[in-house]
Amino acid sequence: MRKLFVIGIGAGNPEHMTVQAITALNKTDVLFIPDKGEEKSDLAALRHEICDRFVTNARTRRVSFDVPRRATPSPSYESTVDDWHTAIAAIYEALIRDEIAENGCGALLIWGDPMLYDSALRILERVRHRGNVSFDTEVIPGITAIQSLCASHKIALNRIADPVLITTGRRLLGEGMPPNAGTVVVMLDGNCAFRSLPGKNLTIFWGAYLGTPDEIIISGRLGDVEDRIVAVRAKARAAKGWIMDTYLLRQQGEAEEDTL
Amino acid sequence: MRKLFVIGIGAGNPEHMTVQAITALNKTDVLFIPDKGEEKSDLAALRHEICDRFVTNARTRRVSFDVPRRATPSPSYESTVDDWHTAIAAIYEALIRDEIAENGCGALLIWGDPMLYDSALRILERVRHRGNVSFDTEVIPGITAIQSLCASHKIALNRIADPVLITTGRRLLGEGMPPNAGTVVVMLDGNCAFRSLPGKNLTIFWGAYLGTPDEIIISGRLGDVEDRIVAVRAKARAAKGWIMDTYLLRQQGEAEEDTL
Ligand SMILES: C[S@@+](CC[C@H](N)C(=O)[O-])C[C@H]1O[C@@H](n2cnc3c(N)ncnc32)[C@H](O)[C@@H]1O
Ligand SMILES: C[S@@+](CC[C@H](N)C(=O)[O-])C[C@H]1O[C@@H](n2cnc3c(N)ncnc32)[C@H](O)[C@@H]1O
Repeated sequence: MRKLFVIGIGAGNPEHMTVQAITALNKTDVLFIPDKGEEKSDLAALRHEICDRFVTNARTRRVSFDVPRRATPSPSYESTVDDWHTAIAAIYEALIRDEIAENGCGALLIWGDPMLYDSALRILERVRHRGNVSFDTEVIPGITAIQSLCASHKIALNRIADPVLITTGRRLLGEGMPPNAGTVVVMLDGNCAFRSLPGKNLTIFWGAYLGTPDEIIISGRLGDVEDRIVAVRAKARAAKGWIMDTYLLRQQGEAEEDTL
Repeated sequence: MRKLFVIGIGAGNPEHMTVQAITALNKTDVLFIPDKGEEKSDLAALRHEICDRFVTNARTRRVSFDVPRRATPSPSYESTVDDWHTAIAAIYEALIRDEIAENGCGALLIWGDPMLYDSALRILERVRHRGNVSFDTEVIPGITAIQSLCASHKIALNRIADPVLITTGRRLLGEGMPPNAGTVVVMLDGNCAFRSLPGKNLTIFWGAYLGTPDEIIISGRLGDVEDRIVAVRAKARAAKGWIMDTYLLRQQGEAEEDTL
């Protein structure tokens, strides 16, 4: 049976690699490295840096592959998530079938943790359902952007015994601050959705390029720092050609003691 | 200036340790190991196992300390979280002042990640505000029980582009499934709050002692597996004297495409 490790490599700092991830890398015959194209070549470079630094097994080779981009959502056929995942499933299937020997072992290197806003596990389920190649999966967790954000700001994710909502920029824009959580973490936000919030008496903890040498963090009362974040973000994005940012918004004060 | 690392050590598997955490351990003169008393001595043992395995700096010593227990919530003075945190702050202050040299370096080893339902960072802020000893903090993220749960079940935390609510057993009991997230993660649940949910057409992914040799995982339709989880949990808890479990509940199907 072929084996595929799905390895979380952390969200920017190579030292986020766990002992478990390093061990798995070195059990692997072939490492699949997605090449997301020019713009985010820094990310592909980080994957290679991790391999250079932590792979000590001389038998391990690397195979680069292209990930098709998803078109901006539109009513057209090609743009659905479903079609996009189908296209990637075909690529994964070919990699598993053609690059991993019958009893061999491959690995997908996943940014952050494979469980968090990443489609690899879901797409591998599709490959399995297609029934053309059989394989076992083992998932290795990795440090996420959320953890990197909290560590850099030296803060807890939650207020005491209070819930946390993890959501996307699009959903924050549509729904505002959640009624059932004193803290919201926002990912996948290309448009600074925090600007749309009517109440500015929230605390924001924002971070871009977390864990990398280019890391930028800003925190404060939303009303006081939002313009600065928008400006710093635009400038950094223009300079590098891309940006990845995550933030946390928190109601002021602690949760009510009686909810504990 | 004294320095204190606050190091996430992962949620049960010593191989969750990151390179960053191992490096920090070895920069440290004194490691503070909480001894949570008899019942959870397995957890103290894991902390020692991690030190035995990863500390190579012969200068590093260990100091055990007792963490006062919080009384079960009641209207009495001593039982408030505030008083509990004050008591721990006094202990941390003494450890930092008495055990770390003026320009030395200490470390607190925190279960999972210090950002997730852990009070150490908040309590260290209190110590700082007391103003009796000054110190720098550096936070090192660690793999959480949530990540361990998802890795063992080989699942994504979220449905596609859909929010996730992280909450406690007490809050799930009071509020039920969230209206604004297709997935809820429940921690700190001593009472199987999932039994209180009226709708049983949810999928549950449950795990106890995650990442350890005693790990147990169960998943399925809530209505089909809840009794089994309750029974397995009670049996394991009786056998070991303690249990730590976490679970994820998911609405069936994917989120609506138009929320993406
Ligand atoms: C497709 S998701 C992948 C998340 C990843 N699996 C993880 O565990 O962090 C990409 C989003 O993660 C966040 N992100 C990932 N890495 C980041 C970093 N180094 N700094 C800031 N945000 C980051 C951003 O919100 C970005 O839009
Ligand atoms: C005080 S919180 C600490 C969480 C920790 N900081 C983390 O990052 O996972 C304790 C709760 O975490 C969960 N937990 C921690 N370790 C676990 C494990 N190995 N297996 C299952 N649940 C665990 C349980 O829900 C438990 O009630």
